[in-house]
Amino acid sequence: MLADRMLGLPTQATAELERSLKEFVSARDLPLYRIMSFQLGWEDENGEPVTASPPERLYGLVAMATAQAASGDYRPAVEYGVSLELLNNFWQMHGDVEDGNTERYGRPSVWWTWGPAQAINAGDGMHAMARLSLFRLREAGIPPERVAAAVRALDEATLRLCEGEYLDISYQERLTVTVDSYLAMAHSRNGSLLGCAAQLGALASLGETSEIPARLVEFGEKLGTARQISADLNALWKEGDRDQVQQGRLIAKKKSLPVVHAMNHAEPGAKRKLGELYMRRVLDPAALGDVAALLETSGSKDFTINTLDSLLSQADRALESSGLPSDGVDLLKEAARAVVALEARA
Amino acid sequence: MLADRMLGLPTQATAELERSLKEFVSARDLPLYRIMSFQLGWEDENGEPVTASPPERLYGLVAMATAQAASGDYRPAVEYGVSLELLNNFWQMHGDVEDGNTERYGRPSVWWTWGPAQAINAGDGMHAMARLSLFRLREAGIPPERVAAAVRALDEATLRLCEGEYLDISYQERLTVTVDSYLAMAHSRNGSLLGCAAQLGALASLGETSEIPARLVEFGEKLGTARQISADLNALWKEGDRDQVQQGRLIAKKKSLPVVHAMNHAEPGAKRKLGELYMRRVLDPAALGDVAALLETSGSKDFTINTLDSLLSQADRALESSGLPSDGVDLLKEAARAVVALEARA
Repeated sequence: MLADRMLGLPTQATAELERSLKEFVSARDLPLYRIMSFQLGWEDENGEPVTASPPERLYGLVAMATAQAASGDYRPAVEYGVSLELLNNFWQMHGDVEDGNTERYGRPSVWWTWGPAQAINAGDGMHAMARLSLFRLREAGIPPERVAAAVRALDEATLRLCEGEYLDISYQERLTVTVDSYLAMAHSRNGSLLGCAAQLGALASLGETSEIPARLVEFGEKLGTARQISADLNALWKEGDRDQVQQGRLIAKKKSLPVVHAMNHAEPGAKRKLGELYMRRVLDPAALGDVAALLETSGSKDFTINTLDSLLSQADRALESSGLPSDGVDLLKEAARAVVALEARA
Repeated sequence: MLADRMLGLPTQATAELERSLKEFVSARDLPLYRIMSFQLGWEDENGEPVTASPPERLYGLVAMATAQAASGDYRPAVEYGVSLELLNNFWQMHGDVEDGNTERYGRPSVWWTWGPAQAINAGDGMHAMARLSLFRLREAGIPPERVAAAVRALDEATLRLCEGEYLDISYQERLTVTVDSYLAMAHSRNGSLLGCAAQLGALASLGETSEIPARLVEFGEKLGTARQISADLNALWKEGDRDQVQQGRLIAKKKSLPVVHAMNHAEPGAKRKLGELYMRRVLDPAALGDVAALLETSGSKDFTINTLDSLLSQADRALESSGLPSDGVDLLKEAARAVVALEARA
């Protein structure tokens, strides 16, 4: 379990987050919420309970680990974690429609099961619920300024997510995306939600008048960007079962850092060969081995590994100057490695 | 103009709402926001300014008319109106993808122009912006409790909207929807946003400790339900150009009150004939005349007109016991007639 690998975050943390998430969603019993229970990994398409563990609650756990690192107590961040998980799951439901993913976490995706209209609608409902869950903090006595700050942070992260997603979609048919454009897109699309997780974790645990350290948000953003780059590497080079969503991105010609690097920096013959493969409407899955070999020769795989390492170092440096206590910094450095090692399914 | 027909709401009200909406959206200049400017009726698909008037801002104006009715001043409700309009437009962008509407307000819809993925994403961004716009109230000195109450009202209305939309989609393939089920669906799907508009208008104008009159929210909900029923009537019986979205609903077998009534209450021969027409995957547009004739004979048209009248009377009675000053009650009664007369494009 991810939580176990996040030193300092007790193993019951996962269970607490899950309980709070379930309590909030299960209080509603219209059929709409069955779709949500399916997406969250609790029920199958017939409404029967699922015995397998639900997916890792990455965003909630990062918020809780940040609170633990900042104040030695993850518990004030549990509610914020619920909100982040609802946001992430709304985003996945819509992403699966947008990208035509038929699978998610080894099960049929929501749109594949209920159709695109119900998937868009259930996602919209969960988007609203992500914020509604934060109002439970008011009932727990958290002052309205803080709840408002959390709501605002969540919406601003969502908007940056959408700005990144716009770029990701519009880059799909372009061969001329630069490495910098790719990194800016990934920062916005993949960095904003983990940046928000760090921000909310700090918000939950800091004193009322404390400022959220900007460097802590930057830590989350670098980590989220690194995670997508790790996913880009796994989609091409991981042994064994590969994540369907990330494989789908590659085949649909969503941009991947090693490919972007090669399109810009490979020698002319390799560029031409890559261009031919990418001229098709979708990439031929059988050609993925050829693509991988090309990217190795062009040094694009190495470049991507170096970029990933560099982003993790930047995340470390952001932590070191965030003003967190040093054992907190160590905890989050370990957490960052666990997050990147976890298969990215963003 | 709708505003002109809302007695007591000065004609500059529309311009003020539009200015504030534009100010908020135009402060951002990434390409994502061009899609939003298109949806809002300000730009064409190439980013060129549109000279035609933007669509009526029904939800914003109802919030402003409610404030005017409650306190004699619509201006405190302008920002809330911006938020409601962003919410409505996010909803339309997603609704057009869900229903496959190729047109909206006589122009191509967003998904028809940019594809479904960009339309879903731009809608998600506008959903987040609907709440972010409310934080401008903080900068204007509105206390955080009130901003939080507005955000919460908006999210709760959105969730009810999604609950209604779930039913609307799932009723599509069913012949056995009862009149009561239809009315409950329309109340949730079409009543919640106008209920929220009345709620936010009251919130903007009432004293800090005042309770929002529940009867005022009920007024908005009844009005929104009435408006959809009026749209159901127009889709079958209006002379001349019919709204493409409402026509599309009918052809896609989305439920319409006169049809639901006939399926339940027509004599057996008429039911069978209707059943045959509704057995097809989509309704044949050429058969709409036959459907209309059937519904006249079965008394379903009259039943629908009576239901519409009854909902408007219920809205009036809710207003009368809302505690608003009597000139405010009169203003909103007139506003309600203007809203129903306006072609529904929900």
